[in-house]
Amino acid sequence: MKQPDVSWGAPRPERADAARNRQHLIATAREMLAELGPDRLTMDALAERSGLGKGTVFRRFGTRAGIFGALLDDGERAFQEQVLCGPPPLGPSAPPLDRLVAYGQARVRFLMEHQVIARAALDGRQPIPAGSQSPLSHTHIRMLLGQIDLGPADLDLLAIQLTAALDGPLLLYLSAATLTQSPQRFEQQLSDSWQDLVRRVCRP
Amino acid sequence: MKQPDVSWGAPRPERADAARNRQHLIATAREMLAELGPDRLTMDALAERSGLGKGTVFRRFGTRAGIFGALLDDGERAFQEQVLCGPPPLGPSAPPLDRLVAYGQARVRFLMEHQVIARAALDGRQPIPAGSQSPLSHTHIRMLLGQIDLGPADLDLLAIQLTAALDGPLLLYLSAATLTQSPQRFEQQLSDSWQDLVRRVCRP
Repeated sequence: MKQPDVSWGAPRPERADAARNRQHLIATAREMLAELGPDRLTMDALAERSGLGKGTVFRRFGTRAGIFGALLDDGERAFQEQVLCGPPPLGPSAPPLDRLVAYGQARVRFLMEHQVIARAALDGRQPIPAGSQSPLSHTHIRMLLGQIDLGPADLDLLAIQLTAALDGPLLLYLSAATLTQSPQRFEQQLSDSWQDLVRRVCRP
Repeated sequence: MKQPDVSWGAPRPERADAARNRQHLIATAREMLAELGPDRLTMDALAERSGLGKGTVFRRFGTRAGIFGALLDDGERAFQEQVLCGPPPLGPSAPPLDRLVAYGQARVRFLMEHQVIARAALDGRQPIPAGSQSPLSHTHIRMLLGQIDLGPADLDLLAIQLTAALDGPLLLYLSAATLTQSPQRFEQQLSDSWQDLVRRVCRP
């Protein structure tokens, strides 16, 4: 039977074990990714290096793409924490327009840093349409728009439009078979053009 | 062997025949769609009503989803003609900002009018990511942005962002399993919010 996901720091001994296993597997997978690259991060290799049984690795991740999905989820969780309670301007207590600019730029940086993982987690599947991709993006952008004095505007739709404008170029880039420019340059361009778009939209 | 697509008004007799067949099949499919709805537009029913052989219908469309794909292509061709040489403000000779507003609004109207066809042509497949969806949209928006005095801006990326902002909400709507609001109301909201977004972005 597939084990349910555990909560971090759950009190019962088996649950704490499972959480430790999970942390250990994620940390090992990150090391392997950094040292060996994505192609050599397989179920068997992860089991061997982590010193855990193949059954444990299989139950935890299901498939090889599941390892990358778990790494992405883990990264998403850390990213979300930065947004919700990290230092400004990404986290609270900066002016909302600064937070909006910082959010898009941090999102671009996060996905570009995780692009190898994101591609491997997609595993040949089509990404789902922009907008449904990032529930956090939409919710957060909508919340910040509500704090900016925009005059009359349909904030719900504007948040969907901006989420799509943020995700669209990234999804195009991540789903491209071949890359035509350097990731660093693309990240900078996207980051700058998000700032430009948001400042234009939010001008008083 | 699958016949190649014919050009409209091609001079050779067989080609003119094929073009007439195509026109006749598309017109018949449109009638059936209007009278009977999408579910009763099948390969067999289209062959019977058009008076053409099942083999001809099969060679032309391949699958039932292919009929809807052909209807959508045919509509896209007519839409493109309106953009390239129809009356202003959608067609040429209106100020570029007016054309940009009109383009998005016409695109929304077109896809909402064709939503039954677009859903049937998707046929359960995931739509591809926003931005790669509408090469015409991206090219046209990029061209119009170049005619507007926007000050310093990365026009290529801005065009990708605006294309995604136009497509994103529509793809979300078209891929939704159940519709939560009336199509007319949604079309009006999208149309208004596109105008609002573009005017904000292009303010001098």
